[in-house]
Amino acid sequence: MADKPRRAKETYRAAGVDINTANELVRFIGKKARATFRPEVISDLGFFGGLFQLGSYVEPVLVSSTDGVGTKIKVACALGRHETIGIDLVHHCVNDILTCGAEPLFFHDYIAMSKLEPEIVESIVNGMTSALSTVGCALIGGETAEMPGIYSEGGYDLVGFIVGVVEKKGVIDGKAINKGDAIIGLPPSGLHTNGYSLARKIFSTEPQKLNVFYPELGRTIGEELLEPHRCYYPMLKPLLPVIKGIAHITGGGIMGNLPRILPPGLTARIERGSWEIPPIFSLIQREGNVEDEEMYRVFNMGIGMVLVCSPVDATNLTKAMPEARFIGEVIEQKVGERVIIA
Amino acid sequence: MADKPRRAKETYRAAGVDINTANELVRFIGKKARATFRPEVISDLGFFGGLFQLGSYVEPVLVSSTDGVGTKIKVACALGRHETIGIDLVHHCVNDILTCGAEPLFFHDYIAMSKLEPEIVESIVNGMTSALSTVGCALIGGETAEMPGIYSEGGYDLVGFIVGVVEKKGVIDGKAINKGDAIIGLPPSGLHTNGYSLARKIFSTEPQKLNVFYPELGRTIGEELLEPHRCYYPMLKPLLPVIKGIAHITGGGIMGNLPRILPPGLTARIERGSWEIPPIFSLIQREGNVEDEEMYRVFNMGIGMVLVCSPVDATNLTKAMPEARFIGEVIEQKVGERVIIA
Repeated sequence: MADKPRRAKETYRAAGVDINTANELVRFIGKKARATFRPEVISDLGFFGGLFQLGSYVEPVLVSSTDGVGTKIKVACALGRHETIGIDLVHHCVNDILTCGAEPLFFHDYIAMSKLEPEIVESIVNGMTSALSTVGCALIGGETAEMPGIYSEGGYDLVGFIVGVVEKKGVIDGKAINKGDAIIGLPPSGLHTNGYSLARKIFSTEPQKLNVFYPELGRTIGEELLEPHRCYYPMLKPLLPVIKGIAHITGGGIMGNLPRILPPGLTARIERGSWEIPPIFSLIQREGNVEDEEMYRVFNMGIGMVLVCSPVDATNLTKAMPEARFIGEVIEQKVGERVIIA
Repeated sequence: MADKPRRAKETYRAAGVDINTANELVRFIGKKARATFRPEVISDLGFFGGLFQLGSYVEPVLVSSTDGVGTKIKVACALGRHETIGIDLVHHCVNDILTCGAEPLFFHDYIAMSKLEPEIVESIVNGMTSALSTVGCALIGGETAEMPGIYSEGGYDLVGFIVGVVEKKGVIDGKAINKGDAIIGLPPSGLHTNGYSLARKIFSTEPQKLNVFYPELGRTIGEELLEPHRCYYPMLKPLLPVIKGIAHITGGGIMGNLPRILPPGLTARIERGSWEIPPIFSLIQREGNVEDEEMYRVFNMGIGMVLVCSPVDATNLTKAMPEARFIGEVIEQKVGERVIIA
């Protein structure tokens, strides 16, 4: 069983992939995945389910999330670089459950393409397992599927599924948020995994255009667009007890995501200019002639994660994280009023 | 938050789907998903993570699995019928974790296509949530993604993630299997979700060919091929304590899946003719002129689930499940020997 990770063999054989190559790939994925195992993992790969023995908790709450990486994949395909896409997938998932205060426990992936390309799968798995190891999360299952006719030639999709745990009394769900609480923003590493449909429209996905060097970025636009989604877990983990709400700024920007954690009757006033907007966003806006409002609706605009806490705790948080910025405060909501970016 | 399931709104807007249609779809998915909730679900849809408070267990083992439904999707697309594909996805996942003795707790889905088609998503969600409700499993998260250029026009992919739980002392992992143990087979509902590449090659996916009526099936080949994957959980749940090993017969057939639960040094001798082979398999073999060995390697051949238990318990099991058949026994393995289908 140890030599037969379920995800691969039959598919490869059906795909006509050379059997030695297939065996090598199966061994490769198995070795990489096993290196992420923690003591609670009590099954090997190749079993029908992944078994994870939950440790001792008073009132354990399981927190789970599913994510894709959207059309950032098209940039990866255009440049033939797939390792960072694996990192993106893991970090997006880890950040999502971090918003509830959860510690990541285990992960599954799904990789599907028209015709299996072992080099692409290996790169993705390299990125995923390296990111998972950093946060102590185990890759205990997954599937690699060949779907001719469903996927376009050369295209693939990648889905991640994460489960974490938090004690019930430690759940962060925004319910404790009050009027007057401080709103803190943390900078992203770039676009993270959102806004790629618009970004690709502006810069195209032709390799020669992606290889154009932009002095304000200090690198090519392709390198900038492939910058992996930042993981906030290691930094925020020790600070979670004082945080009342965390919003992961994904599709929909601050306006679309911050309301997801605010209790009824409250909204937020965000002060434009209270943080630095990274050069990539100004470049996108200029090159694409995009309106301000649209920029804030599509992109994170330099805020990858939003934290809400009391004003006193906010001062301590910004001391602990020098890159954190006060970006606004929680206010009473007039009927129908949305988050205000003033 | 209650009216903003995360999975949908932004994507639909970007897709240019009419905003009223989009809002209706969001409400539809939310209503269907909430109807599957169990008391342990302590978050609403639209949050960054799904929160599930685990009940009281002595030594809880979480069992998780990821599955797609393969190219059965192409048959669904050809016939414009997508509800059963949602059922397939859930049952495949539930059966997978059932092999470890687990009770299903919660589920996430990922639906992606080139351009969002609300009717297709609704049909899939109808099938999924109906299947989930039957086994008491909650749909607490998911993602619906529009990926132009990644998926072929009109094609889509569907991935399911399931988490279940079992007490450590109730884990079924095949370790207790001995020489002389009985092997029992349970009939499937059809092809389940495997062998569709070969089946499609033989019958094509042109609607007019899928609509051909076959007297031995009592229905059209399209209806037969879309028959949803059977769920064994309700039937097997009360019988789990006496079962030593369960193999879900998916890609690779009996030969590929039974060895996954057999301890080192043991293999199985399966008696051909000890169960009835459903007409669809004979039809495939005849129409495609497929060799016997290939049939057993690709299809379940009439055995959807294999159970291993002591000979005494086997007698009781077959009494409790009249459709169960003794199909073989566990034997000592000579060096390099695989499962024997004699």
